[in-house]
Amino acid sequence: MSFPELEHFVRVLSSLPGIGSRSARRIAFYLLKSDLRETEDLAETMLDLRRRVRFCSLCGGLSTGDLCTICSDPTRDRSQLCIVEEPSDIFAIEGTGEYKGLYHVLMGALSPLDGIGPEELRIKELAHRLDTERFSEWFVATNPTLEGDATASYLSDRFKRDTIRFTRISHGIPTGTGIEFADKSTLARSIRERKTLS
Amino acid sequence: MSFPELEHFVRVLSSLPGIGSRSARRIAFYLLKSDLRETEDLAETMLDLRRRVRFCSLCGGLSTGDLCTICSDPTRDRSQLCIVEEPSDIFAIEGTGEYKGLYHVLMGALSPLDGIGPEELRIKELAHRLDTERFSEWFVATNPTLEGDATASYLSDRFKRDTIRFTRISHGIPTGTGIEFADKSTLARSIRERKTLS
Repeated sequence: MSFPELEHFVRVLSSLPGIGSRSARRIAFYLLKSDLRETEDLAETMLDLRRRVRFCSLCGGLSTGDLCTICSDPTRDRSQLCIVEEPSDIFAIEGTGEYKGLYHVLMGALSPLDGIGPEELRIKELAHRLDTERFSEWFVATNPTLEGDATASYLSDRFKRDTIRFTRISHGIPTGTGIEFADKSTLARSIRERKTLS
Repeated sequence: MSFPELEHFVRVLSSLPGIGSRSARRIAFYLLKSDLRETEDLAETMLDLRRRVRFCSLCGGLSTGDLCTICSDPTRDRSQLCIVEEPSDIFAIEGTGEYKGLYHVLMGALSPLDGIGPEELRIKELAHRLDTERFSEWFVATNPTLEGDATASYLSDRFKRDTIRFTRISHGIPTGTGIEFADKSTLARSIRERKTLS
């Protein structure tokens, strides 16, 4: 007695982050009991997201076109660049209303143990932007974790210039967590109190 | 800055059991970073499961046709009926190799607080089978939880006959958990040691 469709479903679903085989099995039975329409909606929703949303060719944030709404917004302050690990970090920072500059998404943080070095991140693209765009300040908003700290140090060592202010958002965010999950006031304060990298 | 496709995805995905809005968001970014082919496979896998697998019209277990492989297997012992809460419980019991009779899935357990009474379960279908099929023993394998115990009592009160042996799988399964997750030897012993309902 075996159902290859069920086993395949459990295998595929539990490859997603945060879903184990038990959760996958519960979801399978939930779908089997619900209307076919519900599963069709779910499949359609996934395909819609993947087909319509992409990464901005300049900053790496979410976009529905080649350039995102921030990069193509003439009212943003083009003298400031905020460097984040993930596109979702942009949502968190935008939510504070504290920052009106541009962004650059690294798509991760340095983590030698996981085989993630500078080549695996969008650091070549960052170097190009720092050379070609006219920023007066860059600030690093990587997570206050081991990897985020290592990434901030690496960026400071490599890109620090006398002519440009180079800061990192201040502590105040509890260490060991992701900035994506910080509350707005903590995150707003950490942006206001950003400090020069030593 | 908003992405209706992303918000919709998070809303739809977090309606599934065991997925909160944070997990849904992590899954969204995971899919956005992976190949389109991966999302297409995922959508296809869900639709395949829902379109090809259904519930057996007799026992309520999983099936790819009108009758499941157990109900249509001439070598099964048609004098024994095992009553379970969920289709997944059949997998667990089959896995022990201890039982060769037929099954009946209730699709849940009595839970008045959640509005689940006898009408919400496959009890009418059970009554019909007990009247029309020639069983010499019925045994109840509902979970050792409050709801499973209440369901076993209800079935005993309503269907106990002098002519038919009516049992429930023995304890040995830790109470408060689901039989779906019991280890095989515990579950096998609880089937061997099933006892008459008082």
